[in-house]
Amino acid sequence: MQAHAGTIEVRTKGKGTYEITRDVAEIVAASGVRTGTATVFIKHTSASLVLFENADRSARVDLHEFFERLVPEETDYFTHTAEGPDDSTSHIRMVLTRSSEVIPIINGALQLGTWQGIFLFEHRRAPHRRSVAVSVIGELEQIKTGRN
Amino acid sequence: MQAHAGTIEVRTKGKGTYEITRDVAEIVAASGVRTGTATVFIKHTSASLVLFENADRSARVDLHEFFERLVPEETDYFTHTAEGPDDSTSHIRMVLTRSSEVIPIINGALQLGTWQGIFLFEHRRAPHRRSVAVSVIGELEQIKTGRN
Amino acid sequence: MQAHAGTIEVRTKGKGTYEITRDVAEIVAASGVRTGTATVFIKHTSASLVLFENADRSARVDLHEFFERLVPEETDYFTHTAEGPDDSTSHIRMVLTRSSEVIPIINGALQLGTWQGIFLFEHRRAPHRRSVAVSVIGELEQIKTGRN
Repeated sequence: MQAHAGTIEVRTKGKGTYEITRDVAEIVAASGVRTGTATVFIKHTSASLVLFENADRSARVDLHEFFERLVPEETDYFTHTAEGPDDSTSHIRMVLTRSSEVIPIINGALQLGTWQGIFLFEHRRAPHRRSVAVSVIGELEQIKTGRN
Repeated sequence: MQAHAGTIEVRTKGKGTYEITRDVAEIVAASGVRTGTATVFIKHTSASLVLFENADRSARVDLHEFFERLVPEETDYFTHTAEGPDDSTSHIRMVLTRSSEVIPIINGALQLGTWQGIFLFEHRRAPHRRSVAVSVIGELEQIKTGRN
Repeated sequence: MQAHAGTIEVRTKGKGTYEITRDVAEIVAASGVRTGTATVFIKHTSASLVLFENADRSARVDLHEFFERLVPEETDYFTHTAEGPDDSTSHIRMVLTRSSEVIPIINGALQLGTWQGIFLFEHRRAPHRRSVAVSVIGELEQIKTGRN
């Protein structure tokens, strides 16, 4: 069993989704782990993670628009707006999506579905530099694969 | 320390929640892990996972109806509708729930609460065959249990 | 590699967020794990977990109010109300936030961002006693830290 750690830095250009699947896969490959898990964790409270369809970009357009409407910047009861109208909205959009995702590794490969990509979801208007920590834990040889 | 992997196949009959607690518990039991974690991961972008109350089915009826209203099929601004009115709605309902859950194992048992069940949440109208990957990591003997 | 388990008991005073970052950090410190992951899991279906900004309390005020409005107690179509108007709302607010979070450990430290705290989110009006299970898995020495 081995534990391996890596970091992904993402420079965002403001609101939107940024795919990091390849960066995570590279850390998994470098770890040599054949059976285990990859934990992906974003170290921020105004950006989040999502697993999302990575084939047709129109799905992401709808996702972005949905969140603009579900948690609008113009929300009149928000009090936490010191950093601008995207302050509380960023934190709440983060809470409604994910901060950590854990993906099984089998035969050395991340067990993502055909259409699944790992995305950083930036909720701030301004460009930001974001840090994603990745932990890979597991066995260097392949063992004990079962099917239920 | 050992890493063990399994897969659960679920045939859904369309929208709704399908309990998979027993399937996950069987993979944990087969692993022999006494102290560690079980990672449950759904390999799809139009179905998700939830931990939900598994005693009174009326809670799930309300859950289903809530999501029909929060992300309605009739949403006029959706553009990603090539596969029907349940296309973008499926992806967004997935993002608002979970793709991965990690459950501690102590004394060989999944640490689920009394009313907690693990459910696959199907967001598509049509029946689908869904794949859930499970990774079990931990020690075969029981050690180092603390209480804070 | 070692697997270590602990439990955090939280006595809530009703709806709101309760920080448990220090409790989780103490379990990680006691484990001796230098490289690995900490899994935090709440054993309830009417309370949840969030990673949230822990500096300015006004952000949490907005979070609480947002959920009161997104999933109102007065929702007329809810049927699962045997335990009161906070019954179905509690379960749905739980589903929209998180039941498990996994945080990487590097150099023996939880990889939380500067403003990230771990909070228990109580969705019930009445005080409750809540259980959070924590699993720490990893290596006792520091190894294999990479940067992508």
